[in-house]
Amino acid sequence: MKKLRIAQVAPIWYPVPPKKYGGIERIVSYLTEGLVKRGHEVTLFASGDSKTSAKLISSSPHYLAGKKIPWSDTFWELENLASAFKKASNFDILHCHVGLRALFFEPFVKTPTLFTFHNPLVSESEKLPPALEILKLHKNQINACFISKSAKKLCPIKIPKSWVVYNGIDLDLFKFNPQPRDYFIWVGRVEPKKGIENAIRVAEITKIRLYLAGKIDPERMEYFEKNIKPHLSEKILYIGELPQKKLAKFYQGAIACLNPIEWPEPFGLVMAESQACGTPVIAFDFGSARELVKNGKTGFVVPFLNKRGERNIEGLIGVIKNIKKIKRINCFNWVKGNFSLEKMIKNYEKIYYEILGKY
Amino acid sequence: MKKLRIAQVAPIWYPVPPKKYGGIERIVSYLTEGLVKRGHEVTLFASGDSKTSAKLISSSPHYLAGKKIPWSDTFWELENLASAFKKASNFDILHCHVGLRALFFEPFVKTPTLFTFHNPLVSESEKLPPALEILKLHKNQINACFISKSAKKLCPIKIPKSWVVYNGIDLDLFKFNPQPRDYFIWVGRVEPKKGIENAIRVAEITKIRLYLAGKIDPERMEYFEKNIKPHLSEKILYIGELPQKKLAKFYQGAIACLNPIEWPEPFGLVMAESQACGTPVIAFDFGSARELVKNGKTGFVVPFLNKRGERNIEGLIGVIKNIKKIKRINCFNWVKGNFSLEKMIKNYEKIYYEILGKY
Repeated sequence: MKKLRIAQVAPIWYPVPPKKYGGIERIVSYLTEGLVKRGHEVTLFASGDSKTSAKLISSSPHYLAGKKIPWSDTFWELENLASAFKKASNFDILHCHVGLRALFFEPFVKTPTLFTFHNPLVSESEKLPPALEILKLHKNQINACFISKSAKKLCPIKIPKSWVVYNGIDLDLFKFNPQPRDYFIWVGRVEPKKGIENAIRVAEITKIRLYLAGKIDPERMEYFEKNIKPHLSEKILYIGELPQKKLAKFYQGAIACLNPIEWPEPFGLVMAESQACGTPVIAFDFGSARELVKNGKTGFVVPFLNKRGERNIEGLIGVIKNIKKIKRINCFNWVKGNFSLEKMIKNYEKIYYEILGKY
Repeated sequence: MKKLRIAQVAPIWYPVPPKKYGGIERIVSYLTEGLVKRGHEVTLFASGDSKTSAKLISSSPHYLAGKKIPWSDTFWELENLASAFKKASNFDILHCHVGLRALFFEPFVKTPTLFTFHNPLVSESEKLPPALEILKLHKNQINACFISKSAKKLCPIKIPKSWVVYNGIDLDLFKFNPQPRDYFIWVGRVEPKKGIENAIRVAEITKIRLYLAGKIDPERMEYFEKNIKPHLSEKILYIGELPQKKLAKFYQGAIACLNPIEWPEPFGLVMAESQACGTPVIAFDFGSARELVKNGKTGFVVPFLNKRGERNIEGLIGVIKNIKKIKRINCFNWVKGNFSLEKMIKNYEKIYYEILGKY
């Protein structure tokens, strides 16, 4: 197959790869490096403090979160997008990872574009928000990729040319460990929808040792102080945000990872990373949980509500008792077979060729 | 001169023209109709509920404020912009009235573009906000128009190709009235920076009759209830938001218009409308006030701070005593000579030809 000239357009909120937090930037980094290794000529549009073996083009010298620019200010994001699309004729394909604002630039260029929607595209009411109204206007012109079947299904706009590619996990980093230590974990950004309070509730009732790891955004500090801190104890510890290597060790030592989320997460990276290390996952049945956890084999997917219509804490407790029945090697093999970096990179490559075949 | 194919790109927050509130949409409407009358082939990009004798193209069937879309949601605005720029090759010139996001699309088209910056471009700190950083990146490529010398001067980015065109007032609507009734007025959107509290303070001390007119945004209701309502009385009345015809009558009957603003308004439409009706203006010396009011001839421009560094209420009171010295006909002539619709339309037309001569 002919090697391609590929543009990867990353978000610029964090560097590519990010130092700690920055899930999309990390995936773009793995994809970019993987495509370079496979012989493609790759150009990465990302913040100036990114590191890559591809050619780097940066509108913004620094990543936006580091400059304390609020999420709602999209000026730099638009400049990054515009600069990539301005150079479109240099590429065989553009691959955009920055959400729906890229739709506005796509009609100006002849180069085919693939959009991966990393963030959920859902509408809570029948009335669509403007972003989805715009997606509706553009749906027949675009090539779209979702990061789970669930994310694709939940999107209220059906896009004719669309695919699903799961995120990949770095198995050299998240290595299998057959023998855990004595603790359970919860990992995520500290916010209600990530289910941190459900995990704590379970630990308080069952007296298991629970370690909590993840970023606290400044606007969540009050939530942490009020809802989380009072529950911390000798057995329930908050250990902060961990860099990748420490996070891997953290997963490896855990008996299981509690992921009792309360939202349809498009792809639960935490679930995949945990299982890569051999650590089974106990998740509430939301979003991609059923795709990421093989229920009864690599962990448990528990219905969110019990018969009384309340949060199903007893469901979580019930499966914790059976956690020893899950073979850790099954978790690893499951990730290796379905969520490896190699698989993700090859899947995207295949889609690029498929799209180009059509043009 | 050859007649031009002109695209006018309006904001879509209100229809063009707006029914009540919507200063930019109103100016775009006057400009569009004026250019059509002068024989140009004009296309207006605006919300679907706009009315125009030009060709109307609408991405959004309805104006956004009517759909309760928050100001921060820029998806429809971007779609409106993208749709105009997509058709750029059909026009000799594009004239954008929607602020800085248009900068992202300009590099994709060959058609020259003029940007009128209706909103203030100012930075309160030395560190530029992202929008102005982006303007800095684009400054040498663009044609920019400010709506007052003050607005141009306050913009921290110096744009080589830039002009000033004052807004125009419809003198058929805001007609001269030689003989006022017995009241003073304040007109504006109800918010602190528009100086409504300063006007009330003056009225309370001098016992003048003061009528307040203007829109209260939902998020300002609390401000109104707390800071304005307790001061209302038999002599100080709030009469709501007035449609254009009633507003003209309101100006015509006033002894003077108090405009003790506390921000550098790029172009104080209220000041121009009031003077068109023959009603002198008493303003604090901010932004365009010195350009719009001929101090001592058509009203008074009062320093914002007194010698003690406080709001100069006594300065306002001092000139109120002299208000009878202002000849109402001077106010009208001043507006007719400098801020007529005809003048605005001809000035823009002149800039279009100037820009096209350069390309």
